[in-house]
Amino acid sequence: MVRVTVWNEYRHERRDPVVRRHYPHGMHTVLAGALAGDGGFEVTTATLDEPGHGLVDEVLDATEVLTWWGHAAHEEVADEAVERVRRRVLDGMGLVVLHSGHLSKVFRTLMGTRCMLKYRKGDRERLWVVDHGHPIAAGLPERIELGVEEMYGEPFQIPPPDEVVFVSWFSGGEVFRSGCTFRRGRGRVFYFRPGDEQYPTYHHPLIQRVVVNATRWAAPPHGPEEVVGRVAPAEAGHGR
Amino acid sequence: MVRVTVWNEYRHERRDPVVRRHYPHGMHTVLAGALAGDGGFEVTTATLDEPGHGLVDEVLDATEVLTWWGHAAHEEVADEAVERVRRRVLDGMGLVVLHSGHLSKVFRTLMGTRCMLKYRKGDRERLWVVDHGHPIAAGLPERIELGVEEMYGEPFQIPPPDEVVFVSWFSGGEVFRSGCTFRRGRGRVFYFRPGDEQYPTYHHPLIQRVVVNATRWAAPPHGPEEVVGRVAPAEAGHGR
Amino acid sequence: MVRVTVWNEYRHERRDPVVRRHYPHGMHTVLAGALAGDGGFEVTTATLDEPGHGLVDEVLDATEVLTWWGHAAHEEVADEAVERVRRRVLDGMGLVVLHSGHLSKVFRTLMGTRCMLKYRKGDRERLWVVDHGHPIAAGLPERIELGVEEMYGEPFQIPPPDEVVFVSWFSGGEVFRSGCTFRRGRGRVFYFRPGDEQYPTYHHPLIQRVVVNATRWAAPPHGPEEVVGRVAPAEAGHGR
Amino acid sequence: MVRVTVWNEYRHERRDPVVRRHYPHGMHTVLAGALAGDGGFEVTTATLDEPGHGLVDEVLDATEVLTWWGHAAHEEVADEAVERVRRRVLDGMGLVVLHSGHLSKVFRTLMGTRCMLKYRKGDRERLWVVDHGHPIAAGLPERIELGVEEMYGEPFQIPPPDEVVFVSWFSGGEVFRSGCTFRRGRGRVFYFRPGDEQYPTYHHPLIQRVVVNATRWAAPPHGPEEVVGRVAPAEAGHGR
Repeated sequence: MVRVTVWNEYRHERRDPVVRRHYPHGMHTVLAGALAGDGGFEVTTATLDEPGHGLVDEVLDATEVLTWWGHAAHEEVADEAVERVRRRVLDGMGLVVLHSGHLSKVFRTLMGTRCMLKYRKGDRERLWVVDHGHPIAAGLPERIELGVEEMYGEPFQIPPPDEVVFVSWFSGGEVFRSGCTFRRGRGRVFYFRPGDEQYPTYHHPLIQRVVVNATRWAAPPHGPEEVVGRVAPAEAGHGR
Repeated sequence: MVRVTVWNEYRHERRDPVVRRHYPHGMHTVLAGALAGDGGFEVTTATLDEPGHGLVDEVLDATEVLTWWGHAAHEEVADEAVERVRRRVLDGMGLVVLHSGHLSKVFRTLMGTRCMLKYRKGDRERLWVVDHGHPIAAGLPERIELGVEEMYGEPFQIPPPDEVVFVSWFSGGEVFRSGCTFRRGRGRVFYFRPGDEQYPTYHHPLIQRVVVNATRWAAPPHGPEEVVGRVAPAEAGHGR
Repeated sequence: MVRVTVWNEYRHERRDPVVRRHYPHGMHTVLAGALAGDGGFEVTTATLDEPGHGLVDEVLDATEVLTWWGHAAHEEVADEAVERVRRRVLDGMGLVVLHSGHLSKVFRTLMGTRCMLKYRKGDRERLWVVDHGHPIAAGLPERIELGVEEMYGEPFQIPPPDEVVFVSWFSGGEVFRSGCTFRRGRGRVFYFRPGDEQYPTYHHPLIQRVVVNATRWAAPPHGPEEVVGRVAPAEAGHGR
Repeated sequence: MVRVTVWNEYRHERRDPVVRRHYPHGMHTVLAGALAGDGGFEVTTATLDEPGHGLVDEVLDATEVLTWWGHAAHEEVADEAVERVRRRVLDGMGLVVLHSGHLSKVFRTLMGTRCMLKYRKGDRERLWVVDHGHPIAAGLPERIELGVEEMYGEPFQIPPPDEVVFVSWFSGGEVFRSGCTFRRGRGRVFYFRPGDEQYPTYHHPLIQRVVVNATRWAAPPHGPEEVVGRVAPAEAGHGR
């Protein structure tokens, strides 16, 4: 059982009737349900307006993978919480960053780049699998059709990803690297594009499947601790 | 349960008393035992001098990961068998290539490069984990000490690996990328350096652990089939 | 001055009036002209039906970058010529593979994979730069519009590229990694998608610009020879 | 002519007689001399204790590649200067980070990781070229011997590099990825390990050659600007 915390800004759903209709109890509830339904995860949720944004040490200590959705309130996330999350990722916690989370402090800090892109509401999206052997593509068809979504277009200002799993086609003429993996320290990061709050994307079974696959992929593999700092020689007798 | 076939040239062990002392029933038996002992694998073995080199369709159809050790008789492996293995890898079968397997037809064909390196018998090796978050490094200490092994030194004439998990230090002054991953088609390939027949390397519990980890890592994740060839437009109505 | 040989199958142009209208003296003449016009190259051409396919030792010895267009006659290229080219690439010669060259023996041998893809004649293509800092994108706008081209769609059965410079959008709904770099041995390989013989693509100034940039990028940087085989210890006194 | 600014902390040389003996006018003077001697660069220098650390807008606007050596005073570099440098790199300025610069704010911010490592003074180092076709290895032999240097050992807490050009062997038994490339935005970053202040490393002609090669490699290639933000559809007529 992989212990997952589904983090959500949870503001749009409370303020905007369109969003509330898609996600009456918040996106995090839908995503948590998809993960719980898979059977391989112990799922909790956390949101921005909880104390410590729900990202206090006790929560993070019990989190193996964190999923992140944020949009309107990136700057309200306290730097201390960002640093707590970043440290955990570097020590092995998985991180699945969703849609507008590309501009979250957590993601930008781990990437070191601007993480901006082109955007436009109300497009049609087709996600093509480009890495057919990747575990995040397990059980998928070769493409996922989203009848309406926000468009994100290149350039996506990220470092060269370790792997690109999906590339999106948009009816307005743009393309986007929609599923990208990054390793940072001992942790694994997956960025997944779809999920604008105006559309019911996270109810789509194939999108849920990607989130489930990505969460499993991001679970820590428990390699050795990283020993750094001043050390004695590995060669016995060296330097005497 | 992942179905593994452990392939071995199995010539040195029958001819050379030093090698036979280390592996009286062949290296494949020791490696198969390590995999069987892990509990997650269904293990069979195959060797060069069996009909079809033990790599006939019925065997390969039931193989999810193939491990490969060869050295003296690379050229005796029939091109048809090589092509059968290559096709399976491209379709998703994992491949773990061990030590002198770097010059096997199977590995060279999948890499497209010369795959040569420097070598010298009778060195001391220290494998350092350089990717502490990689599943192949799970459960390992930060380094593995091999009191005596053959030296392999850079340049290792391979394409840029997708990931480098281990880098070796040798007492004679050389270094080597000793654990490298490659994706080819839907299949995953891992090259692991240690295992010269003159030394009892595959009895080492940490070396066995790497082989077990790599075999699990290489198991096929079952993403979508690759549809290629002439196709109708993905956009309905397009081109009419 | 970089010495370039522009290789062309040169069959379609002689047989098919549509192709001949676009390239009365062969595509190689147009590509060679673009390179010559840049001023940084010494350009020669070679075609399939010349002796040794124009790829004899004297030619290849004087070639720093080879560009390759082939389509209908891949299987007529002699294996010896393929091996001569492959060896040169591994030793540092640059290789720019164009359009249907993805199925050439030279490219498939260097990649080790099937190199197939989806295709369909008569689409509209928009190439987006996705690596804005890459030398192959120098002097380009962020996208190149091709009013009519053959569609190539994912999956493109290649190993994970070192770098992806362009991603194409097609009006029929597909996407494609249209500009990919690979290092093989000391040589650099660039695959560039556009250039179906039915359309006048290589007359397009921005497409010519890409070919010029790629040829310059692929020129050999003259690093050290690769010393492989049995060697004495790098550590003086070791092993005595 | 590539315009280079050689940045140096320039504290050790003024305080420590051992360092002063190696670099009486500062390391930056030696490095600037090596670059100037090559003929392809316009070279200036800047140091920590100049106003704005010598990294004011007028200087950076005229800088195509910045080289960086710092060690004892990383925390004294003002965050505003770090941000000015970071922005320039993302917009295309090259960055060559030397030795203890791995812990500089500039490097850590661009990497997003801890960037720590093992260390120990007074070892012997042998840098092996592992990417023989890389422009940074041009004109080098296959290895560089440094009779005495500080040891840096794995794990080097960086993101997976785009390319690894050098791997070091140390007499004390460690290994290190000593030459690593990273692209960040439109800029190119090279990290190069050698250069502890206690040793005369930057006088070594082959080490100078690497710095010269890396500076040339890091020069901006002038691809297209990155257009991000809200955009109209690329497809004319779309969405009407």
